[in-house]
Amino acid sequence: MARHLTLAACQTGPIARSAGRREIVDRLVHLLEEAASQGASLAVFPELALTTFFPRWLIEDEAEIDGFYEDAFPNAATRPLTEAARKLRIGFALGYGEIAQGDGRRRRYNTMALVGDDGEVLGRYRKMHVPGSEEPEEGTTVHLERRYFEPGDLGFPVFDYRGTRVGLALCNDRRWPETYRMLMLGGAEVALIGYNTPLLLDEAPALAHLRMFHNHLPMQAGAYQNTLWVAGCAKAGLEEGQALIGGSCIVAPTGEIAAQAMSVGDEVVVHRADLDLIDTCRRVNFDFDRYRRPAAYRMISERAGPV
Amino acid sequence: MARHLTLAACQTGPIARSAGRREIVDRLVHLLEEAASQGASLAVFPELALTTFFPRWLIEDEAEIDGFYEDAFPNAATRPLTEAARKLRIGFALGYGEIAQGDGRRRRYNTMALVGDDGEVLGRYRKMHVPGSEEPEEGTTVHLERRYFEPGDLGFPVFDYRGTRVGLALCNDRRWPETYRMLMLGGAEVALIGYNTPLLLDEAPALAHLRMFHNHLPMQAGAYQNTLWVAGCAKAGLEEGQALIGGSCIVAPTGEIAAQAMSVGDEVVVHRADLDLIDTCRRVNFDFDRYRRPAAYRMISERAGPV
Repeated sequence: MARHLTLAACQTGPIARSAGRREIVDRLVHLLEEAASQGASLAVFPELALTTFFPRWLIEDEAEIDGFYEDAFPNAATRPLTEAARKLRIGFALGYGEIAQGDGRRRRYNTMALVGDDGEVLGRYRKMHVPGSEEPEEGTTVHLERRYFEPGDLGFPVFDYRGTRVGLALCNDRRWPETYRMLMLGGAEVALIGYNTPLLLDEAPALAHLRMFHNHLPMQAGAYQNTLWVAGCAKAGLEEGQALIGGSCIVAPTGEIAAQAMSVGDEVVVHRADLDLIDTCRRVNFDFDRYRRPAAYRMISERAGPV
Repeated sequence: MARHLTLAACQTGPIARSAGRREIVDRLVHLLEEAASQGASLAVFPELALTTFFPRWLIEDEAEIDGFYEDAFPNAATRPLTEAARKLRIGFALGYGEIAQGDGRRRRYNTMALVGDDGEVLGRYRKMHVPGSEEPEEGTTVHLERRYFEPGDLGFPVFDYRGTRVGLALCNDRRWPETYRMLMLGGAEVALIGYNTPLLLDEAPALAHLRMFHNHLPMQAGAYQNTLWVAGCAKAGLEEGQALIGGSCIVAPTGEIAAQAMSVGDEVVVHRADLDLIDTCRRVNFDFDRYRRPAAYRMISERAGPV
């Protein structure tokens, strides 16, 4: 019998700086209900889905910065989400700012949690490719992720969700082929990706018309080249004066976009994913064990940039 | 002053099994003249450009097999090509079957040579990802590259052509993200790729409509994700009863197809490539030194398939 898993990308429209967790969590629960009502059994929310995309600002007040993070997930404010998962029998991945202890000090990560359909946390991913800078840089759109987040320290974990192997990634991760490769090698069949992507960059006016193409191209190539189902989920629309790209989508292991958001607001994109297509694509296009040449790829794991 | 290099993909139509080297080389010289007349200074020919795509047959006669290879390049039959390069001041990359000595025995490789605009060979690449099988396999289109070619043993070399760093790849190589990554890390700015790709595969009738998409997608992603100019060149059309895909193209470091073949016959595709676009894309999209995480990618160079 064919294996299927119905995936949902729960895109959100803009989230105001002033919005409180309760209001935001209510929106997310509503989207999760909508996904479940359309038959989805695994949903993905955006990166940093519980707040506005605060790395667009230089914020000096530490207490104010902390206000954009969770020191536990779930906590009182977010527990309605895990309770909804349990009640609706739908798993989800959710991006949020995480405060954690590590090596005796307090750390901040750009994190995504995977929650099972019993409402329990199956695992966490911490964004490996953190873009932007620590200080505002002349002539570029302010993007201070490297100020507010340490690079992830958990690698590219893959989790079991109802017998399907699921990996997670966040925003800039989706542009790097290594993300999908590591997930495939870790056994992933599905990649859930959340993002917040400015539509316009001060440093690249001549490339502005390519932003949606550059959103989809690496997800499509990553799906095709690694025979993965990919669900990409945007926070979209005009948020605090900054336009964020939408284009949330479910991409098949053929690289085709199977379903796509038609708005830059709250919207659920659903596709009943045929998991057997993974095997077909692996057999026809990519027999990894037979054809890859790992020993010839050493430079990929030895140096960052060109010689 | 902006740096430019005018690239040409010299696509060929089918080559009959009965065609002799002289006739074929004449066709290639004509294409090189056409490329030069359109201002190109570096051209790419298809994979195995000097013969029909013989891996579609099980051939037992060793002398007949040898007839599809060169034991030297250039030799008497192919020297008109290197002489044309010198006369026209245009470099080129050409795919051919290579017979070589290595570790005390005779070896066969699927090779591409890069020739400078002085007609001298700048270097060679031997196909790293050799697809197909050693024996015909039930239910699949006969594709015996692994019978006729050893996997390449030269890695992913990058050569200097008139101050531009140029890498080479062949056919199936273009589907693997590691090919482009290794070339980028080796300093490449331009990747020249030749291919022979059957339009239809017995094993994948349901994916037949995706063959051109799967031709372009990995070249576009490889160009974008590695900020390379990519020139892909097909042997195309109905060759000995087998339809080969065309779609020869020049792809920009933005991932856009800048120029594309409109036929499945002999056709020259030309684009004046702005090499400065590489730096723009690297600065805006991919600052490799700053953002890649090589130590986290070890599995890519340690294992071939999923755990």
